[in-house]
Amino acid sequence: MRKVFQAELHQVGDELIQIATLVRAAVEKAATAYENADVELAEDVIAADARIDFLQTELDERAIDILARQGPVASDLRMIVGALRMSTSLERMGDLARHVAQLARMRYPHPVAPPSLVGTFEEMARLDADIAGAVVELLDTRDLSHATRIQQLKGRINELHRSVFDAVGDAAWAESPARTADVVLASRYFERFGDHGVSVSRKVTYLVTGEWDADALEGRVGADDA
Amino acid sequence: MRKVFQAELHQVGDELIQIATLVRAAVEKAATAYENADVELAEDVIAADARIDFLQTELDERAIDILARQGPVASDLRMIVGALRMSTSLERMGDLARHVAQLARMRYPHPVAPPSLVGTFEEMARLDADIAGAVVELLDTRDLSHATRIQQLKGRINELHRSVFDAVGDAAWAESPARTADVVLASRYFERFGDHGVSVSRKVTYLVTGEWDADALEGRVGADDA
Repeated sequence: MRKVFQAELHQVGDELIQIATLVRAAVEKAATAYENADVELAEDVIAADARIDFLQTELDERAIDILARQGPVASDLRMIVGALRMSTSLERMGDLARHVAQLARMRYPHPVAPPSLVGTFEEMARLDADIAGAVVELLDTRDLSHATRIQQLKGRINELHRSVFDAVGDAAWAESPARTADVVLASRYFERFGDHGVSVSRKVTYLVTGEWDADALEGRVGADDA
Repeated sequence: MRKVFQAELHQVGDELIQIATLVRAAVEKAATAYENADVELAEDVIAADARIDFLQTELDERAIDILARQGPVASDLRMIVGALRMSTSLERMGDLARHVAQLARMRYPHPVAPPSLVGTFEEMARLDADIAGAVVELLDTRDLSHATRIQQLKGRINELHRSVFDAVGDAAWAESPARTADVVLASRYFERFGDHGVSVSRKVTYLVTGEWDADALEGRVGADDA
């Protein structure tokens, strides 16, 4: 009985990794679609998001079923509740990658970002992809150095996010209002994506150490408060 | 024992109502601060958000404690898991009200929205406050007519959200890029606030009827997909 239970817990962990791997692919493709005005790749990301949503629903149902049948306690219970919460964050990360792809599709054949911000968005996108990769590693290995790395990457995203607003507010900004709206939203999507990555990393840290840090207790992180 | 358990479940329900009531007050005050460039009211909202975050953490700990001690099944289990998820949505609604207040504070003594959009934002803010009020009623009474109403209110918010982007993209738009960025973000905050209200309403509907609608299964609602 206990062996079956452990196998079930393990499967939930594997499914989280599977979803995180799809999220990583989504943000990598969305970033390329965004940078290169690649409408086919954007369509791929948009279509693939349904799979992430489906897997999240499936994982949540399995987790609730385990709660009902096994009545887990202590660290097993924490793990199941943690999985329910992490799946929500991962699903939102998939949505945000989809939003970036939708921006690319909407502006096709033009790129979303003006030349002056191409470098900034390339870096933000790369950082988000790195965060998604570190989330996969963290879920797989429970090695908390990945959690530290995720928070460092997010620190840099916050700087870039602020720099987008500085650029938009600068006297030299000469883009159309529609483009201004696009870059503000895109920057917010990339920033929120990273925020959810930090959120997952804090939940894993909690599962491993049994301790929240204060920011996580307050339910918020990073630039979202700015 | 069963009586104690029912009292505990009841307390979780009461705490959700308490948090939702604070969220309603937050969005009402944030809307007034936003419309009237009232920096003191904005400060109130920003300070009060910590209380919402604290209550969410407390509720979540209580819910997990009930899972551990009581091992609930069937509808009791659904209710506890639902409470964990609804508390996350309510906490995000509090954050979004805070973001609106932060915009008001940042632009003080000037109003955030230009005269041409004052009416639009007033209506969005009123709709969000109505949604928050309906969420309180729905949690309190389980009367699903409130859920229907929330979805209707959100439909109108989606229209207004789109109209903000239409205004920004219109040839007549002559506001500064910084103001363009502000109104795009503010519109997104008001729209997401409503989205989370819909999310809570779907979870209550699920608890009452045992059935998800398809959109809820897909984990997304409304204009967020646009």
